[in-house]
Amino acid sequence: MAAERVREISTSLIRRMFEIVERAKREGKDVINLSIGEPDFSTPAELIDLAHEYMRKGYTHYTPNLGLEELREVIAERYGVEKDEVMVTVGASEALLNASLAFIEQGSDVLIHTPSFLSYFTYARLGMGNIVEISTFSDFRLNPDDVAEKLSGNTSLMFLNFPTNPTGAVLGQKELDAVHQALDGRAVIVSDEVYDRIYYDKKPGTLAGYENAVVVNAFSKTLAMTGWRIGFVIADRDLLDEMLKVHQVNGVCAPAFAQKAVADFMADGKDREFVEGMVREFRKRRDFVVSRLKRHFDVVEPQGAFYVFAKAYSGFIEDVLLEKGVALTPGNAFGSGLEDYFRLSYATSMENLEKAMDRIDEFMEEKKY
Amino acid sequence: MAAERVREISTSLIRRMFEIVERAKREGKDVINLSIGEPDFSTPAELIDLAHEYMRKGYTHYTPNLGLEELREVIAERYGVEKDEVMVTVGASEALLNASLAFIEQGSDVLIHTPSFLSYFTYARLGMGNIVEISTFSDFRLNPDDVAEKLSGNTSLMFLNFPTNPTGAVLGQKELDAVHQALDGRAVIVSDEVYDRIYYDKKPGTLAGYENAVVVNAFSKTLAMTGWRIGFVIADRDLLDEMLKVHQVNGVCAPAFAQKAVADFMADGKDREFVEGMVREFRKRRDFVVSRLKRHFDVVEPQGAFYVFAKAYSGFIEDVLLEKGVALTPGNAFGSGLEDYFRLSYATSMENLEKAMDRIDEFMEEKKY
Repeated sequence: MAAERVREISTSLIRRMFEIVERAKREGKDVINLSIGEPDFSTPAELIDLAHEYMRKGYTHYTPNLGLEELREVIAERYGVEKDEVMVTVGASEALLNASLAFIEQGSDVLIHTPSFLSYFTYARLGMGNIVEISTFSDFRLNPDDVAEKLSGNTSLMFLNFPTNPTGAVLGQKELDAVHQALDGRAVIVSDEVYDRIYYDKKPGTLAGYENAVVVNAFSKTLAMTGWRIGFVIADRDLLDEMLKVHQVNGVCAPAFAQKAVADFMADGKDREFVEGMVREFRKRRDFVVSRLKRHFDVVEPQGAFYVFAKAYSGFIEDVLLEKGVALTPGNAFGSGLEDYFRLSYATSMENLEKAMDRIDEFMEEKKY
Repeated sequence: MAAERVREISTSLIRRMFEIVERAKREGKDVINLSIGEPDFSTPAELIDLAHEYMRKGYTHYTPNLGLEELREVIAERYGVEKDEVMVTVGASEALLNASLAFIEQGSDVLIHTPSFLSYFTYARLGMGNIVEISTFSDFRLNPDDVAEKLSGNTSLMFLNFPTNPTGAVLGQKELDAVHQALDGRAVIVSDEVYDRIYYDKKPGTLAGYENAVVVNAFSKTLAMTGWRIGFVIADRDLLDEMLKVHQVNGVCAPAFAQKAVADFMADGKDREFVEGMVREFRKRRDFVVSRLKRHFDVVEPQGAFYVFAKAYSGFIEDVLLEKGVALTPGNAFGSGLEDYFRLSYATSMENLEKAMDRIDEFMEEKKY
């Protein structure tokens, strides 16, 4: 009964990981989960109370499909774009699917730099496009020449994700400009910038306001509100109109009270303070984890997000999970040829990270790698 | 840049209506909006406070893609199905898109009984299917023989919507069984039952637990929480697995605190009381509006939902909006050949309805129809 577009989408990798974790737990392992894709911080209490206040004031109904004016204005102001170029969505995911259905022509090429977030492959399949991987070995940044080389008359869309999940690679504004130029206006660029405010050195660039570019972002990671389902898109009105056709029968609108509460919180600049505190903590953890992992592995030094991507050997993540109860994400979830790699998420307490690093040390010593 | 699947989707009808409303307002008309597709009631205060409590307790993170166990259990119990057959979604809309992408094969036939909710046409287009309308004139129920006649080897999916938006038509369990039988297991049935608890006489049937059937529902209409974005799907595990492939890159999960709060509210049976009160009020309004509209129009007597579908003449809704400030929805939004019809939503106060009916009387008398 399944349509062709979903037949090639596999949930088997995630299932396999889940089964291995369950098996480890059954065997009495105290599992430390370092595969989590969301901040361990809680949503700011003030934001929660604002949401409650607005629920009680009646913000429990549909909002306009484009989102509440006040939130669109705050976002537009931050990016220096027009309010009409902003659409609020149900998290970044819904926005990515809307863009994929709006712009991926069936049978066209979809460019994905790898390693990157496994969902881009799914979006490309749902849009019935051909996946064209652009490998970013060995520095895990993106070479504009590689983009130009893979671009063809059949390319409809390119996904960008900087800071990158899983490598934490960052492109500054100039580097991003060069990629935009390499695409030469011949494809829609969907720039997933959900980690843009979690960076440690170089500031990530943005394609907001650029031609043929759709910027996707969310408050999920920056305000620790993944469970609220609120994101946004910035694009010119023509592109926005096409995505709106999908959005109005998909997410419809982000939760009304959440839109209103985030608008207030941002208007007062309170998001800045919160993000700073979170990044301060993430930086400590990154430095710690990187220095410890370097004892054993080739480590991609992360410049943003909250992941470390490192090279071990094929089968490492099963071994370390079953023997030591440390759950990581396998490299092949992020593109082909990455079996030897793993992703470690440091979105967990320093205490957990210390325990996990000790266990990995033990494991590697026992194995005499 | 737009892909073929969105090029045929038009937002022009809605825009035209919006422009007409704006023009009426500019001309100083006091516009009564009877085109609203959601209850005018507010979310129960107790549910709001529960949500706040759970936000504070940390229900601000992702939940599992399938939804929180406790909510899936309550839903499963109500329907007499297994918990594993329930997936929580971001409202009914996300669920309908997930099902469409999972089951509509490109180029296959999609059956839609008309008049019905205009979004089904959009879902069919996003799935790149061929729309096959099954007209339900003249009793606005669905004749199983008509279904069997339109079914072909190329049919992938049929949308059902009883109680129906816009007619309020209801199919009882036996009638629904007959439609299910007519489809003979040769297509997936997506049964959108979002109005199932808003009925006035005959109880609407459900396809929950039926083979090849995907039941889509939401708390949006029944608990007056459209702005919360929480719905669900009931289907066997194989069908659910295919939809999950889309859901995990689309809505991902419904708001965490909302899932938890609704689970508590339902476990205590408090939803029943709330729905009863709402239906009592809707019944009064329905009886009033139907009796008044009958003075002038052929009226389809609604058995459920909160709409009246009636026949006037092509151009009526523009006239009555511009001259009397009463905003209705045009019939051609619900299928072809329906230009003479309009939909009136009675999800507004009795006071507004009384004013609107007086204005329509005036209009019809002035026109000497």
